Amino acid sequence: MSASMTDMDICEQGEPDWLDVWRVLEPAFRAGESYPLPRDVSEEDAKRYWIKTDGFNAVARDHNGAVLGVYYLRPDQGGPGDHICNAGYVIAEAARGRGLATALCLQSQDQARAMGFRGMKFNLVVSTNEAAVKAWKKAGMEIIGTVPGAFCHPARGFVDAYIMFRAL
Amino acid sequence: MSASMTDMDICEQGEPDWLDVWRVLEPAFRAGESYPLPRDVSEEDAKRYWIKTDGFNAVARDHNGAVLGVYYLRPDQGGPGDHICNAGYVIAEAARGRGLATALCLQSQDQARAMGFRGMKFNLVVSTNEAAVKAWKKAGMEIIGTVPGAFCHPARGFVDAYIMFRAL
Repeated sequence: MSASMTDMDICEQGEPDWLDVWRVLEPAFRAGESYPLPRDVSEEDAKRYWIKTDGFNAVARDHNGAVLGVYYLRPDQGGPGDHICNAGYVIAEAARGRGLATALCLQSQDQARAMGFRGMKFNLVVSTNEAAVKAWKKAGMEIIGTVPGAFCHPARGFVDAYIMFRAL
Repeated sequence: MSASMTDMDICEQGEPDWLDVWRVLEPAFRAGESYPLPRDVSEEDAKRYWIKTDGFNAVARDHNGAVLGVYYLRPDQGGPGDHICNAGYVIAEAARGRGLATALCLQSQDQARAMGFRGMKFNLVVSTNEAAVKAWKKAGMEIIGTVPGAFCHPARGFVDAYIMFRAL
């Protein structure tokens, strides 16, 4: 089964969305297999990480209003580096395996283009997170570098992380 | 002429050092050729960028107390990524061309090892900054990736940036 934009409504995240968003983020952060946050991160710190004043946040919901996935988009660097964006995604556990990550990534690239970004960069794609690597490649992201042992995986120890990039 | 540790005293930066540090940082930030900060960055914002609560800052002075160079060292990522450090350096204009960047980078690697870091990563080495690239290579840093057009150079427009890494 493959996902398309018509399977989900993607809207800018507002303050009232937070609890729904947190319900999707929390299990991913607690698993500790993909994001550079302590597994016991507080809701407050997670919110501060996910939502930045210079960023854009989105929520994808199905037609019943259930959250399928979320993303953030923000400048990867400041000043002369602020034309490249960084982004992060979490797909709700119940919605995985349907190609939503690729669809959400592609939609976020449109959003980034509309915001004037010229490229999208991921700084820490955990190499053991094979489904994610595959999804980002399908969305046109390429591995441009590997950081040896950059991520301490709860089961596998120090594993490599990829840096991925796509010109927009 | 090549520099050695004996040519400079490197100490942890304290609050009273800030004005001397800023005098070295300001011309580098105003030039806009190496750091991802707006060229007109305020002193306050520059200080917030340079000094982080989870970071380490150092000042290298000559035997007369003049600042030769400065650096910051901090976790590149949080949680399961916090064993890799990021660092940034500025050499005082009057002290350039003497190998101090390499010496300071090597000393910062010792500092990073002492702090428990397992690797050092630079995220945005502007490709046109050839002296810097050469200095970091001499200090054992290797280019592990190139981000196309990641930096908007004031004279050359969009230029590539390197990601550099060294295991510690």
